[in-house]
Amino acid sequence: MADASLPLQAALRDVAGEMDRMFDSLLAVPGDPRQGLYRAMRHAAIGGGKRLRPLLVFATSRLFAVDRSRAARVAAALEAIHVYSLVHDDLPAMDDDDMRRGKPTVHKAFDEATAILAGDCLHALAFEILADEATHPDPFVRIELVGALAHAAGPSGMAGGQMMDLEAEKASFDLNTVTRLQAMKTGALISCAVECGAILGKVPVEGRTGLRGYARDVGLAFQIADDILDAEGDEALAGKKLRKDDAQGKETFLTLLGLDRARAQARLLVEQAVEHLHSYGPEADLLRDIARFTLDRDR
Amino acid sequence: MADASLPLQAALRDVAGEMDRMFDSLLAVPGDPRQGLYRAMRHAAIGGGKRLRPLLVFATSRLFAVDRSRAARVAAALEAIHVYSLVHDDLPAMDDDDMRRGKPTVHKAFDEATAILAGDCLHALAFEILADEATHPDPFVRIELVGALAHAAGPSGMAGGQMMDLEAEKASFDLNTVTRLQAMKTGALISCAVECGAILGKVPVEGRTGLRGYARDVGLAFQIADDILDAEGDEALAGKKLRKDDAQGKETFLTLLGLDRARAQARLLVEQAVEHLHSYGPEADLLRDIARFTLDRDR
Repeated sequence: MADASLPLQAALRDVAGEMDRMFDSLLAVPGDPRQGLYRAMRHAAIGGGKRLRPLLVFATSRLFAVDRSRAARVAAALEAIHVYSLVHDDLPAMDDDDMRRGKPTVHKAFDEATAILAGDCLHALAFEILADEATHPDPFVRIELVGALAHAAGPSGMAGGQMMDLEAEKASFDLNTVTRLQAMKTGALISCAVECGAILGKVPVEGRTGLRGYARDVGLAFQIADDILDAEGDEALAGKKLRKDDAQGKETFLTLLGLDRARAQARLLVEQAVEHLHSYGPEADLLRDIARFTLDRDR
Repeated sequence: MADASLPLQAALRDVAGEMDRMFDSLLAVPGDPRQGLYRAMRHAAIGGGKRLRPLLVFATSRLFAVDRSRAARVAAALEAIHVYSLVHDDLPAMDDDDMRRGKPTVHKAFDEATAILAGDCLHALAFEILADEATHPDPFVRIELVGALAHAAGPSGMAGGQMMDLEAEKASFDLNTVTRLQAMKTGALISCAVECGAILGKVPVEGRTGLRGYARDVGLAFQIADDILDAEGDEALAGKKLRKDDAQGKETFLTLLGLDRARAQARLLVEQAVEHLHSYGPEADLLRDIARFTLDRDR
C-alpha cells in the first residue's frame, strides 16, 4: 500500500487541480445581480473535497483510452451533482452543518436562499455540461451519460437515499435497510462515476459486470469507512463536524456491526472490489489503489 | 376571443388531465421509507396549475405533427422543472409562501427537508424522462432537449432569474434589468417549451426564428399580466398569496410603467407574438389563443 499510494496521491492532486480549473472556467462571475449566486457556487465547487467521483471517472476512462478532456467534463458534471447535494444536505432544515471541507457551509458564508439556488444551479449545470457536444461527439454517448446521472441523482438514487437517511433519525433501520439506504445515498453516484467511464469507453452493457461489482463494493466500503470516521475521526482533518450519527441516534454500519466487524467487512469489500477487476491488467491499478484508499483516509 | 377560447379551454383541460396521469404513473409511491418524499412530489406535481408550459409543448408540437405521447413526456419534463422551482421558491428562506395552487405549499403540508428533497427529485426526474428512449428514438433529439432544458433551468435561465428576483428586494432595478430578470425567471422556461416542440418536430435552428419571437413576447406578456394579477387579482381564484411585490418593495413592470402603460404593453406584446406566427396556418391557432389567454386569466 505504501508504494501503491504514491501514484494515487499524485492522481488525487492532479484531479483536484483539474476540477478546480474546470469549475473556475465554468463559473466565471457575471457582472450583474447574479454575482452572489456564482460566488456561492464557486465557494462550494472550488478548492476542497476528495474528488473521489471525478477520480473514478478518470481511472475507469483510462481502461478504455478515453480522451482526458472528455473524461474531465464528465467528472465535473458528476462532481457538480455531488457538490449540489452537499450544499442542500448542509442546510438548517436538513443536516444543519456549519463547516464543510474546512470552510463555512454555503448557507453560513452566504445565506439560505443563495445556498438553495446555488445547489439548484449546480444540479442543472451538470446536465448542461453533459449535453454539450464538447463532452462527446456521439449523441448516443451523451444521452446515455445523462440518463445514468439523472437516475443516480434522483429519487431512486442519491436524493432517495438522503430521504431515507432523514427517516433514519425517526425509525430504527436494520442492516438490510441501512445497506440499501447507503447504496442509494452515496453508492449510486460512486457507481455512476464508474459507469460513466465505461459509457465514455463505449463498453456495451454486458461488458460492464466487473466494473459494476467493483463500484458497488467500493461504494459500500467507502460508506462503512465514513461511519467509522464519523465515530473515530479528527474533526480538524475531516474539515466537518463528526460524531453526528450518534447524536442523532441513527443506526449505521457501526452501530449495527460494532467496530471490529465493521472494519473486517470493509476490508472484505475492498478485497472483493479488487477481485472484480481480475480481467484487467496494470491499467486498472489506479482503480485498485482507490479501493484500498477508501479504508485509509482521514477525511 | 370568446369563440376562440372554447378550443383553448378544452385544450387546457386535456393537458391538465394528461399531466396528472403522467405524474401519477411516474411517481408511484414505493413501499419503503421514501414514501413521504414521493407523497410530497405528488402533492406538488398533481392536481393544479395552469399547465401553460406543457400546453405550449403540445401546441408547438402540433405544428409539426409530432406524436402526442412523445410531446406528453417532454411536457411532463418541463412541468417537473417548473414544479420543482415552485416548491423551492415557496420555502421560508426564499419567498416564504403558505399556499400554492389552492393547497398548502409542500413545506407546510410536509416539512422543509422533504420540500427541498422533493424539489431536487423533480429536477432530476425531468432529465431522466428526457433521456429515456420512450421520449424520442433519435438520441440527437433527446440530447438537444436535455441541453435546452438544462440551460433554461440553470444560472443563465430560471434559477439565475430567481436569484436576481431575490436581489430585487434589496436593489432598485430599472426597466431593462426587470425585463432581463423576467426573461430569465419565467421567460426561459416558456421559451424552452416552444423550443422543445420545435426540437421534437426536427425543425432546424434557422427555421425557429418566428417561434422564438413568439415565445419571447408571450413570456413577457405573461409576466406583465402576472404583475397586474399580483396587484389586482383575487387570492381565492389565484390560489396563492397576492400583493407581495408591493409588500417587498420590489420594482415590477407595474411599478415602473404604471397600470395603463403595463396593460398597453402586454397587449402590444400579444399582438407581436401572434404576428410572429404569420407563416403558419390554422394549425397555429392554439398558439395564438394561448398568447391572448396570457392577458385574460385570473390565476
